[in-house]
Amino acid sequence: MAGVVAVVGVTGAVGQEFLALLAQRAFPADEYRFLASARSAGKTIAFAGRDYTVAELTETSFEGVDIALFSAGGSISKQFAPIAARRGTIVVDNSSAFRMEDTVPLVIPEINPETIDQHQGIIANPNCSTIIGIVPIWPLHRHNPVRRMVVSTYQAVSGAGARAMTELLEQSQDVLEGRPPQPEVFDVPCAFNCFSHNSKIDENGYNIEEMKMVHETHKIFHDDSIAITCTCIRVPVLRAHCESINLEFENPIEPEEVVDLLLGAPGVSLIDDRQGNRFPMPLDATGRDDIFVGRIRRDLSLPDRRGINLWVAGDQLRKGAALNAVQIAEYLVR
Amino acid sequence: MAGVVAVVGVTGAVGQEFLALLAQRAFPADEYRFLASARSAGKTIAFAGRDYTVAELTETSFEGVDIALFSAGGSISKQFAPIAARRGTIVVDNSSAFRMEDTVPLVIPEINPETIDQHQGIIANPNCSTIIGIVPIWPLHRHNPVRRMVVSTYQAVSGAGARAMTELLEQSQDVLEGRPPQPEVFDVPCAFNCFSHNSKIDENGYNIEEMKMVHETHKIFHDDSIAITCTCIRVPVLRAHCESINLEFENPIEPEEVVDLLLGAPGVSLIDDRQGNRFPMPLDATGRDDIFVGRIRRDLSLPDRRGINLWVAGDQLRKGAALNAVQIAEYLVR
Repeated sequence: MAGVVAVVGVTGAVGQEFLALLAQRAFPADEYRFLASARSAGKTIAFAGRDYTVAELTETSFEGVDIALFSAGGSISKQFAPIAARRGTIVVDNSSAFRMEDTVPLVIPEINPETIDQHQGIIANPNCSTIIGIVPIWPLHRHNPVRRMVVSTYQAVSGAGARAMTELLEQSQDVLEGRPPQPEVFDVPCAFNCFSHNSKIDENGYNIEEMKMVHETHKIFHDDSIAITCTCIRVPVLRAHCESINLEFENPIEPEEVVDLLLGAPGVSLIDDRQGNRFPMPLDATGRDDIFVGRIRRDLSLPDRRGINLWVAGDQLRKGAALNAVQIAEYLVR
Repeated sequence: MAGVVAVVGVTGAVGQEFLALLAQRAFPADEYRFLASARSAGKTIAFAGRDYTVAELTETSFEGVDIALFSAGGSISKQFAPIAARRGTIVVDNSSAFRMEDTVPLVIPEINPETIDQHQGIIANPNCSTIIGIVPIWPLHRHNPVRRMVVSTYQAVSGAGARAMTELLEQSQDVLEGRPPQPEVFDVPCAFNCFSHNSKIDENGYNIEEMKMVHETHKIFHDDSIAITCTCIRVPVLRAHCESINLEFENPIEPEEVVDLLLGAPGVSLIDDRQGNRFPMPLDATGRDDIFVGRIRRDLSLPDRRGINLWVAGDQLRKGAALNAVQIAEYLVR
């Protein structure tokens, strides 16, 4: 059994997904503790046939807690995850706070579960776009090393939280009724629009989301030599990301080989019906665990049959966040 | 003066944009003739202070017509453009019917206006995604040849016509009110969703839209050697396309050079504010003539400073269709 499990940030979009997954997967906890900011403390949460009261997250919240699932933003993680870890709680942290630290395993259970055991109290959950993109690339990379990736994302608003999802719906209603949309979470309108990811732009011209995909992929694949360039874009979709992925391999590769490798890959489902023109869509991935892959075809622009194009869709709140963390917790319990 | 100008398919989304542009640009026609299918014939159209009656398109519609702007779909163009051309009308055709024919110039006035004079009665307007993508690439390519392009599109529904735009709005309302969306124009829901472009998939795994971008770019640039791979995706946006473009050049190139080349380029505007995180969006491009370019940065995944990433947005109905055709007509009149 898993003992006492805490969920930090339980009222957020990922927090709510934690609850759904822990119940659905019958996570073997003896007891739960649901934590959030003072603003949300006192709220009642119905979970697995019982009512729980949300407690305020404080420095003493982790007494007796065995595993804590954190998803309350980077600054909360930075402050409270080390406190929890110091008292013996194993933290699975969904923020970016500790991902690139040498002593913190950065884990996708389908790719590098063996690194979980090296933890020193904190295990990091990768960025959603990284997870959704590389779960299907890993079985290909092991078979034939990927030398270069060119990725363009089509990201749902859920990555910016539950409030962003409401904002998309409200703005859509505004536009339909002829009112100007009122951006609050984002700086620009999200309804019927696309925009460059809302994270800060680095001196090299890339936003933080794009550089996360580069650095996290290197760490998770244990291979800094893969050349990666990303363009991260938000689209008016609620909770599933898509990515257009162009791959250059070390050796020639056939689209049929890619299909075969992905058919048996954990966490991957194919939707690749050329005749019916049916390929992965955010609506296919919504509420689903797998990463959906399609549009598998040779990149005709690369010589020597070394290029492949893919199109993937995955639920940002599930495999992109809560599910991956729960899978790590399940590994800890096993 | 331009004599008599016919607009074929005047009641469609592009047809309506033709009217707006011809009025706005005070196109020097002596007389207009507005043509459409029997279904739309008899409708009244207010244009430049006068009421016009839409006439049914027939084989005799082009008597006395000097220039005909066609946007009524490929099969109408195939049937009627040769009839018009035979009787001396110069056809500017927005469909894909004649684009790849050797005797038909395929023209973007900012790129290859000199080919207009070679027409034999029909001049083709390129595909919207081709135009929006390559208007800003041309000044770069002339300065330093582009050797490879990896493009992912974020295409508005307007490319599928006025009915698709209504469908996006209606489906959005359905979703907001908890009803399942009812796809009609597209096979799949378009509201709050993304999907692979609705054109037929070729044996090589590419859809027709993607191969148009390859072949048309080769023809317009007069250079078949550029390696191009595209992924064409529809997003829930009304009328402006975006494209994520990765370029590999023959020689090293600096992002600052790209900015300088684009600042003076016809038909191009920059929105590239890294500090303010403001880059081109469909809402910026809507109703505007220029292609907007931003996110100009070095592709860190290519050696020898030969890679550049760009993000562009352009109005699909304007520069992607009607405006480009009207510009060709203006060249003919000049």
